[in-house]
Amino acid sequence: MIRFNNDYSEGAHPSVLERLVDTNMIQTPGYGEDEYCILAADIIKDLCGSEDLDVHFLVGGTQTNLTLISAALRPHQCAVSAASGHISTHESGAIESTGHKVMELPSSDGKITAEAVRKVHLDHVNDVTHEHIAQPKLVYISNPTELGTIYSKKELQDLSDVCREYGLYLYMDGARLGYGLTCEGNDLDLKIITECCDAFYIGGTKVGALFGEALVIKDKVIREDFRYIIKQKGGLLAKGRLLGVQFLALFEDGLYFGISAHANRMAAIIKEALTAAGCGFLIDTPTNQQFPILPDEVLEKLGEKYAYSFWQKADNNHSAVRFCTSWATREEDVKSLANDITDLMMSGKV
Amino acid sequence: MIRFNNDYSEGAHPSVLERLVDTNMIQTPGYGEDEYCILAADIIKDLCGSEDLDVHFLVGGTQTNLTLISAALRPHQCAVSAASGHISTHESGAIESTGHKVMELPSSDGKITAEAVRKVHLDHVNDVTHEHIAQPKLVYISNPTELGTIYSKKELQDLSDVCREYGLYLYMDGARLGYGLTCEGNDLDLKIITECCDAFYIGGTKVGALFGEALVIKDKVIREDFRYIIKQKGGLLAKGRLLGVQFLALFEDGLYFGISAHANRMAAIIKEALTAAGCGFLIDTPTNQQFPILPDEVLEKLGEKYAYSFWQKADNNHSAVRFCTSWATREEDVKSLANDITDLMMSGKV
Amino acid sequence: MIRFNNDYSEGAHPSVLERLVDTNMIQTPGYGEDEYCILAADIIKDLCGSEDLDVHFLVGGTQTNLTLISAALRPHQCAVSAASGHISTHESGAIESTGHKVMELPSSDGKITAEAVRKVHLDHVNDVTHEHIAQPKLVYISNPTELGTIYSKKELQDLSDVCREYGLYLYMDGARLGYGLTCEGNDLDLKIITECCDAFYIGGTKVGALFGEALVIKDKVIREDFRYIIKQKGGLLAKGRLLGVQFLALFEDGLYFGISAHANRMAAIIKEALTAAGCGFLIDTPTNQQFPILPDEVLEKLGEKYAYSFWQKADNNHSAVRFCTSWATREEDVKSLANDITDLMMSGKV
Amino acid sequence: MIRFNNDYSEGAHPSVLERLVDTNMIQTPGYGEDEYCILAADIIKDLCGSEDLDVHFLVGGTQTNLTLISAALRPHQCAVSAASGHISTHESGAIESTGHKVMELPSSDGKITAEAVRKVHLDHVNDVTHEHIAQPKLVYISNPTELGTIYSKKELQDLSDVCREYGLYLYMDGARLGYGLTCEGNDLDLKIITECCDAFYIGGTKVGALFGEALVIKDKVIREDFRYIIKQKGGLLAKGRLLGVQFLALFEDGLYFGISAHANRMAAIIKEALTAAGCGFLIDTPTNQQFPILPDEVLEKLGEKYAYSFWQKADNNHSAVRFCTSWATREEDVKSLANDITDLMMSGKV
Repeated sequence: MIRFNNDYSEGAHPSVLERLVDTNMIQTPGYGEDEYCILAADIIKDLCGSEDLDVHFLVGGTQTNLTLISAALRPHQCAVSAASGHISTHESGAIESTGHKVMELPSSDGKITAEAVRKVHLDHVNDVTHEHIAQPKLVYISNPTELGTIYSKKELQDLSDVCREYGLYLYMDGARLGYGLTCEGNDLDLKIITECCDAFYIGGTKVGALFGEALVIKDKVIREDFRYIIKQKGGLLAKGRLLGVQFLALFEDGLYFGISAHANRMAAIIKEALTAAGCGFLIDTPTNQQFPILPDEVLEKLGEKYAYSFWQKADNNHSAVRFCTSWATREEDVKSLANDITDLMMSGKV
Repeated sequence: MIRFNNDYSEGAHPSVLERLVDTNMIQTPGYGEDEYCILAADIIKDLCGSEDLDVHFLVGGTQTNLTLISAALRPHQCAVSAASGHISTHESGAIESTGHKVMELPSSDGKITAEAVRKVHLDHVNDVTHEHIAQPKLVYISNPTELGTIYSKKELQDLSDVCREYGLYLYMDGARLGYGLTCEGNDLDLKIITECCDAFYIGGTKVGALFGEALVIKDKVIREDFRYIIKQKGGLLAKGRLLGVQFLALFEDGLYFGISAHANRMAAIIKEALTAAGCGFLIDTPTNQQFPILPDEVLEKLGEKYAYSFWQKADNNHSAVRFCTSWATREEDVKSLANDITDLMMSGKV
Repeated sequence: MIRFNNDYSEGAHPSVLERLVDTNMIQTPGYGEDEYCILAADIIKDLCGSEDLDVHFLVGGTQTNLTLISAALRPHQCAVSAASGHISTHESGAIESTGHKVMELPSSDGKITAEAVRKVHLDHVNDVTHEHIAQPKLVYISNPTELGTIYSKKELQDLSDVCREYGLYLYMDGARLGYGLTCEGNDLDLKIITECCDAFYIGGTKVGALFGEALVIKDKVIREDFRYIIKQKGGLLAKGRLLGVQFLALFEDGLYFGISAHANRMAAIIKEALTAAGCGFLIDTPTNQQFPILPDEVLEKLGEKYAYSFWQKADNNHSAVRFCTSWATREEDVKSLANDITDLMMSGKV
Repeated sequence: MIRFNNDYSEGAHPSVLERLVDTNMIQTPGYGEDEYCILAADIIKDLCGSEDLDVHFLVGGTQTNLTLISAALRPHQCAVSAASGHISTHESGAIESTGHKVMELPSSDGKITAEAVRKVHLDHVNDVTHEHIAQPKLVYISNPTELGTIYSKKELQDLSDVCREYGLYLYMDGARLGYGLTCEGNDLDLKIITECCDAFYIGGTKVGALFGEALVIKDKVIREDFRYIIKQKGGLLAKGRLLGVQFLALFEDGLYFGISAHANRMAAIIKEALTAAGCGFLIDTPTNQQFPILPDEVLEKLGEKYAYSFWQKADNNHSAVRFCTSWATREEDVKSLANDITDLMMSGKV
């Protein structure tokens, strides 16, 4: 079975793992106060174009989201998210568990617009009963989104402008940020993201690390005492060095971007084969997640050899599924999948 | 200014107030362990047709909802509600504040159906990633709904059946229950509600009391230690007797139902005038809340004399508004409103 | 049975009740935005010596404590309280339920000292692992305390100074504030309390009202959006006028202080009889709660006629109990109790 | 600098790391549903002597504690812990953050007794106001304790008996369990712990793993839907295999116990040197944490070469400190420390 069902089926990129092995017996202070974390944070700040940032390393994405959001909000405030956002759909109520509503905005492409945020804010303040309604305070976006789409520079800046105008926080979940920053059509980089967002995280778990997310916080109110809150939420890793070492390996020589670009190239091969075979897509995406709509018979055949994620029924005998590539995807496996798709779709075998 | 903007503009029904005055200097134990509470609970149990119930008296509706729901759910479980449900829209995130997501179901009439609940449940259990998704466990309905509509016996029984089939709790918010149980077309009563629901509350604040809701709990798991949770959430009234005395006044001779029917009759007069004047309605309702769509010019004129609630814009120069009647509404005021509506709509004054 | 077990055995002072009756049928806006609340708040601000305050009226003490404290703290911060403080002992974990630890300080008299607070703060910041420890941020005191004792002006100012020096909030629970401000030896008043505290509440439930606490907030950070949080925690009374009307009755002509002084006088009669009879006390208190240590045989006898609260065993055949007086206590009942104590203790009947 | 300040200064035991390297490129399902987790869980169940257990692998101790405790308790229930317990002192209010009070019991040796638990329970149920008090429901113990002491079989069975008698959960934090199970004087093993406790965890972070704790749950109520709650609290590791692989390496051949015994031997060398040099101890402990009381001058000297943890001042010129050994401690370093202690204490250099 060759796995395309997600982008975390393997361990870490060999260079990352090697670094962990090399530093294994070195003694360091705990809880992220070691030299590796400090060094990795410095490199990330540099890439973000500012010294005036806090960088915290956490183990996973849900943990990062709930820690950041609960640190940012007062009790009556809520996070605004696309209905398809990870915090809305796939975190078992983690944000609500910290006491805060997630207000869902409808979205067909996983993104939310500045205009939608403006409307949410104005509808709230103009409602005479607004003290009876959870107050929108933080805008959560993911880039790439859960549907593999990306924000343009213009879209992000517009969101940022409206958030600043109304005193809202803008927070980006970058679980797959590498894939977004290296795909065709992208015009964002870490500096622009830092300018636009109050906080965001650079995902490592899905991009070459064993685990780990680098949370960058620009807003000074959120930054205050943040490590207490990481600890309280169970996210302060005793051997924090493990995170520092991994992000050092990923960022000191640009490995993060190189392996992300590789995954996008692998996805493009699949996309091309699907397109050539006449498949439709749930949505058009330039990143490592592809959402083709395929005949259920074809999917059944493919499923004997490849793991993919079922996404949703498209009609009585077609389904949308997800194929993911990653830093670990081998070109031979992608070509084999592409060939099998072509064969099954074209040759009338199904 | 004559207020039709809500059903809690006055104090208490005179009979209720009189009883509070009469018992004022009698010494009782605190926290609802007095004879009035015990007596009122017994009368309510009797009306519900079962001894095997717990009845708790709380001060307000949001407090009752958050106490009951947080007592019923484990951390990962969520409440399912119509998107227009009070817990979704008008409790400032109270349920989320106790740690639980409110899953919203679309609804045009404020109600949710057995089929919608079945789908929510089956979609959840059939999703292979369901451990990553808040688990639907409690179905919240309001009767009458926030839009003044009511559940039929058949609809409630169907909801109850599907909840039992899947191990879900069914909870009814009866903030305006009296108005629902005495309106035209209603075929529910307290006995049927008790049979169908695991818990529900009989609203006093909007139906004759100064304040107070009688929460009836049938489910034994939720009942356990419930008074601890009332206390913890700040809802255990020191002079609990005040609640017992009021519910005694409301229920020992059927006052509750009599005054509810009065409010519905007053609403029907307004409805009739609006209909005769050719107004459309946001929704057709048999209870004390009416949601006509009126020209903004007419509304402006009416607003000089009567308070109403703005609901939503209907088009560029029409709006849906809410007129509420209550136990306290005087027929002369309703007739005056009806006449003014007729005048303004018919005579071409606007 | 004559009840001395607490200070909330009756309804409201007749003047308060009368005002509720008089205003009963007047229509007002809901949720505390009526003229009575505004007027009552203005009177209270005047007594506090400042316009720059927010006054909110809530129904009960636990509700007030949990709303204020959860509004004031970020997730990792905790409240510091005497171990005997109401939030530590008798609110069923209400503060923890909002996510915050209550750090308990030992105290023999129910009070905490500036020095103890200084130590807590310095111990925290000097601990190199302090990011792993809940951060003390709010100092909770009650006046009178749960043991009937009071803070002097000097003690309160010292507490205030140390709190300001270290950026801590000082919050006073005044559930029985009237009894404290009118007792022998008191040198506090509302103006001094306002100067010293960031927030405090003036208790009505135990001092003449049916229910209700007037929460005065001076700190501007806590004040922001506070009504959202009252609503979220279930404390926003629909007919908020009921609170305004009662506090108006209590404060416009000084009724609150008059009835508090009465209760203290009644308590002094009991205290005198106990002292004359040679009883010891758990603690010496000038307010409406008296904690004598009595032979269990005497207590049994007294219990046939009077309700009191058991407090703790003193030795094998003596117990400390609490006798409470209130605005409602009749001199004849107190004299009867005093006589019976004298009789039982002196005449060798036991 | 040679670090004795804690037992997590290095990465993983080489055998653990090697296994991670060997399995790195193997594709597995995510979230702990891989074969390594299943296999490791089976081995642990076998060691615990029961098939009827759930084993979950989490990343860290605070995360494990807050997830288990919040899953076990209803809102009004609290955890009972020694005042020195990790959940009381060093988790930044993590348990309270999930809504639950931690009730602290005084303890001089880090342990709590069956009698103390019995008293807590009986005091609660016998208090007539118990509905106003957080209800003790879960007893938290750590073994070894935060002071390095261990429970005997008799002590644990007594605790278990009293918990069962009163319907309380018994939960053991085994962050350093290996050191406890292999030290001199220990008569516990995993089977006895499984018999006595409703849940416990076997710590990996401090005993040979990069990170990871194996949570064993016997109680069926807590077990239900537990993975949802792990996810909600941010503890469900995407590459769960990393935990399975590490626990497999630690447990399939007894490595866990071997390296624990090594650490205890290393600690014994330090203890012996300290004792020979006439040092007192804060407490006598047979495990890998030693708490000597040393002259501040000696400590200053030692601090130039060795890292230790300051614990508390003993008197004006003595302090209690902690020396930790671990699986990674080298005998040469321990001997060097022992010699230096001897030298400094004996030779009159200080």
